[in-house]
Amino acid sequence: MTATLGTNRYGKSRIRLVKVRRERDPHEIVDLTVDVQLEGAFDPMYTDGDNTACVATDTMKNTVYAFARGDRLDCIERFALRLAEHFLAQPAVARARVAIEEQPWSRLAAGGAPHPHAFMREGAGAWTAAVTRAPEKTEVVSGLADVVLLKTTDSAFAGFPRDRFTTLAETADRILATSMTASWTYASVDSDFGARERIRAALLETFAAHQSRSVQHTLYAMGEAALAASDAISDVTLTLPNRHHLLVDLRPFGLDNPNEVFVATDEPYGLIHATVRRT
Amino acid sequence: MTATLGTNRYGKSRIRLVKVRRERDPHEIVDLTVDVQLEGAFDPMYTDGDNTACVATDTMKNTVYAFARGDRLDCIERFALRLAEHFLAQPAVARARVAIEEQPWSRLAAGGAPHPHAFMREGAGAWTAAVTRAPEKTEVVSGLADVVLLKTTDSAFAGFPRDRFTTLAETADRILATSMTASWTYASVDSDFGARERIRAALLETFAAHQSRSVQHTLYAMGEAALAASDAISDVTLTLPNRHHLLVDLRPFGLDNPNEVFVATDEPYGLIHATVRRT
Amino acid sequence: MTATLGTNRYGKSRIRLVKVRRERDPHEIVDLTVDVQLEGAFDPMYTDGDNTACVATDTMKNTVYAFARGDRLDCIERFALRLAEHFLAQPAVARARVAIEEQPWSRLAAGGAPHPHAFMREGAGAWTAAVTRAPEKTEVVSGLADVVLLKTTDSAFAGFPRDRFTTLAETADRILATSMTASWTYASVDSDFGARERIRAALLETFAAHQSRSVQHTLYAMGEAALAASDAISDVTLTLPNRHHLLVDLRPFGLDNPNEVFVATDEPYGLIHATVRRT
Amino acid sequence: MTATLGTNRYGKSRIRLVKVRRERDPHEIVDLTVDVQLEGAFDPMYTDGDNTACVATDTMKNTVYAFARGDRLDCIERFALRLAEHFLAQPAVARARVAIEEQPWSRLAAGGAPHPHAFMREGAGAWTAAVTRAPEKTEVVSGLADVVLLKTTDSAFAGFPRDRFTTLAETADRILATSMTASWTYASVDSDFGARERIRAALLETFAAHQSRSVQHTLYAMGEAALAASDAISDVTLTLPNRHHLLVDLRPFGLDNPNEVFVATDEPYGLIHATVRRT
Repeated sequence: MTATLGTNRYGKSRIRLVKVRRERDPHEIVDLTVDVQLEGAFDPMYTDGDNTACVATDTMKNTVYAFARGDRLDCIERFALRLAEHFLAQPAVARARVAIEEQPWSRLAAGGAPHPHAFMREGAGAWTAAVTRAPEKTEVVSGLADVVLLKTTDSAFAGFPRDRFTTLAETADRILATSMTASWTYASVDSDFGARERIRAALLETFAAHQSRSVQHTLYAMGEAALAASDAISDVTLTLPNRHHLLVDLRPFGLDNPNEVFVATDEPYGLIHATVRRT
Repeated sequence: MTATLGTNRYGKSRIRLVKVRRERDPHEIVDLTVDVQLEGAFDPMYTDGDNTACVATDTMKNTVYAFARGDRLDCIERFALRLAEHFLAQPAVARARVAIEEQPWSRLAAGGAPHPHAFMREGAGAWTAAVTRAPEKTEVVSGLADVVLLKTTDSAFAGFPRDRFTTLAETADRILATSMTASWTYASVDSDFGARERIRAALLETFAAHQSRSVQHTLYAMGEAALAASDAISDVTLTLPNRHHLLVDLRPFGLDNPNEVFVATDEPYGLIHATVRRT
Repeated sequence: MTATLGTNRYGKSRIRLVKVRRERDPHEIVDLTVDVQLEGAFDPMYTDGDNTACVATDTMKNTVYAFARGDRLDCIERFALRLAEHFLAQPAVARARVAIEEQPWSRLAAGGAPHPHAFMREGAGAWTAAVTRAPEKTEVVSGLADVVLLKTTDSAFAGFPRDRFTTLAETADRILATSMTASWTYASVDSDFGARERIRAALLETFAAHQSRSVQHTLYAMGEAALAASDAISDVTLTLPNRHHLLVDLRPFGLDNPNEVFVATDEPYGLIHATVRRT
Repeated sequence: MTATLGTNRYGKSRIRLVKVRRERDPHEIVDLTVDVQLEGAFDPMYTDGDNTACVATDTMKNTVYAFARGDRLDCIERFALRLAEHFLAQPAVARARVAIEEQPWSRLAAGGAPHPHAFMREGAGAWTAAVTRAPEKTEVVSGLADVVLLKTTDSAFAGFPRDRFTTLAETADRILATSMTASWTYASVDSDFGARERIRAALLETFAAHQSRSVQHTLYAMGEAALAASDAISDVTLTLPNRHHLLVDLRPFGLDNPNEVFVATDEPYGLIHATVRRT
């Protein structure tokens, strides 16, 4: 039997990139997922394990982040064209395909105006309600599920204890992103359930405006604001995963990265859960 | 060894319910997912297989749909309270929990005004772009992924062939719902990529306004409108799954259902895929 | 501007089909997901809304179930060939594509031998453990997540109360399928954690062997068996979603369906959750 | 209004950990996902942004990897107990919860015997078949979807080009993991479709036995082996995502890591796709 290589391509998928444009207020964010695929004269890689012409997919990833440093990313087609041209110029490459998905974010409102640093992924999350009914007691807990929020500044994390397993640097200015799930208990079955809109507004505005020293710190402020927004509720419970955005180290490529180019990560994530109660 | 039953509960989860309020223009829709869980004196079910007190979970589902017929569903807390009260009144039930998730929809815009019958799930879908670059040729294909759309009227499906496997009734007025994925090819690398906003508007407005005889019929009209919206593109490809909404048969419960209460289903689904080209 | 229809196809996706071959012991099951896509002279559907040649995707679904009645389904390629030939023979169809995914199931073991009626989806589920440690108390809870089980007989559901919302028929013989999540509490931190294998075997063997009158009934028997399998544990908690398999009504096509051809459904589902404790 | 902090906890979720025990042949692997949650006197974190007692969730993650270095991980309960004891000893912590999910892997067979270095995630993947039928031509393509494979050695990646964006080190010995999707074209509609078992065995045995210089290199060998296993097929197409396993840097904690403790990552991933044809 003889075999031969047919159609083939390879590359890197799901390169997650968030860029913050901070040069002036208000900040702007761009959220991209990039895939790179190359075709060309790659037969020796397959048939002989000869990697001489094999651009590492790790290098593709680095290239995407490095190119993102100097690009405003206001047109994904132009960014894809630049990347494709770069990859096509590599030895052995006959065709380069760069595919980008751009996730839209909306600016959060605060005090009736768009907030300069805080954003919400489009899709407002779902409203929830759970009624538990026993002969002697009825409980109404309402809430919001999966509201994805991000702020580009006014978030620090410092002063935490350092033991022999601690490597995290202190930071005075980081991205804070979460997918908020909230629930609140109504004082009675005759409460004004229309309060949910005001509670939602209070949660989002506080997320935007808070000078955060930790997710826990912001959670508590959000809880307080929700309680202040409506007398109808007696407590609020918030679950805030910390969706880490890691600053990319661009120094190996001779570039700085002044808090602009980030990797959005899914795993692992911090998870903060607490109830704030009216007293 | 002796064993005994501890904490226990049972019920029905993921009851998918869409209600259209048609009594006047504009239509309104409510999209709920309901879970019911009961606790009580259910030991004989577990220990002896005695189902005398076992409200079937299928009955719970029917109850949710029947109650939805006469409820405006403008307050999920009140709907949950009514359901919980009903289930608590069943023999053996000591506690009923009804949890509801409400998925928000936005009204589509058409001609600058909110459309009376057409809706979009919040979250605008993602923008996409794919550049394929070879020495002799560069192709730029852009698009939109996963834009969830629904219209409550102006959609028919009739006149299709009937063979011995056909059971589907003809309909002059059904819900049409889809999760649109679209892509279009730009005429050149110097095209105006800003055209994507106009193309998106044309696709959505046509979905809303079209007098649909089938998904295929609407797909073609959407494609034509996209081509008309921008000279920068030479074709548009649309993938439109048909997310079936099935009218619930409420007659067993002595109720009519004048095109109001539907089950939203995920599987199976129709899938329509076509390219419309400029000529 | 003039537009014209380019490449196009349509069809039905995710047709979920489970067939039980019962003609002799042991039973066998086949679990398929079928997609049908047609190409052809369908331009009038798109351009004029003329459905004369439009085989309804609902008809495609019916056809798949009807063909499954008389086919042993022991070769998915031959089943796809038969279906494709049928669809190609319809007016206007120039090309039919039938794609099938077959999900493998393993026979459960009971008493060292393969069980004639009980099956497990390959993939044994994950082992879990959760330690909660406070100064005064340490709790060790271990378990299993997402073990997908199915039995083709020895499962009934009857004798449940009938109210005005009840439409479910009583049944003496149905498919019982679930995705088991189990957890058990160890009596102490010095327990024999190697007991997990015996507990797992007891849960699976009891699922297989039990003469089930309801999911609750089988849950309790499984819990008792787990407690009997190991003195190291003091309770066991089981969560058993009821993954409904609905018998397809083939009478419109002139066929019977003696408990053989089923639709596997994901939503809604029954959900049974209980703890069984050692006393 | 006054508010007060109620129930609260925080921690790190989805810490993905794969350990290879290499001390003797055959290798063994353990695949864990760890969640840590702490409760305690954390009020100042919430109310004042005082992080003095706030063990960083990043430190929790580091601790899990460092503890994994010296633990055989043959009992997830004992590993969770050790971690919980460590976290409970931190200032302010009143309760520590460590939850672990262990994903089972099976040893691949090769030549009838269990392979010493190659593994398959339980669940054999699904079989697939797609028939495309036109009047003049019928094509039968069958395959396998989502077969998750891993080998702990006999995989290198070196000799690739280095440009200014390359940071990846060359390696002579890495983990190779993938989720294989394969498809092959039968020579005719009268082919022996029972060949699928032999083709599957050839793909898996070659994955296990191959001295890999790259995913591409192994892909080609697998394709050749599949063609050799059955004359019934004319080509085989393989899609092999490279599920990267990154060696954890334990030096900050005073530990070495001789190719033992890895982070399993989902994103980004390499993606290799090629057809091997009979000539």
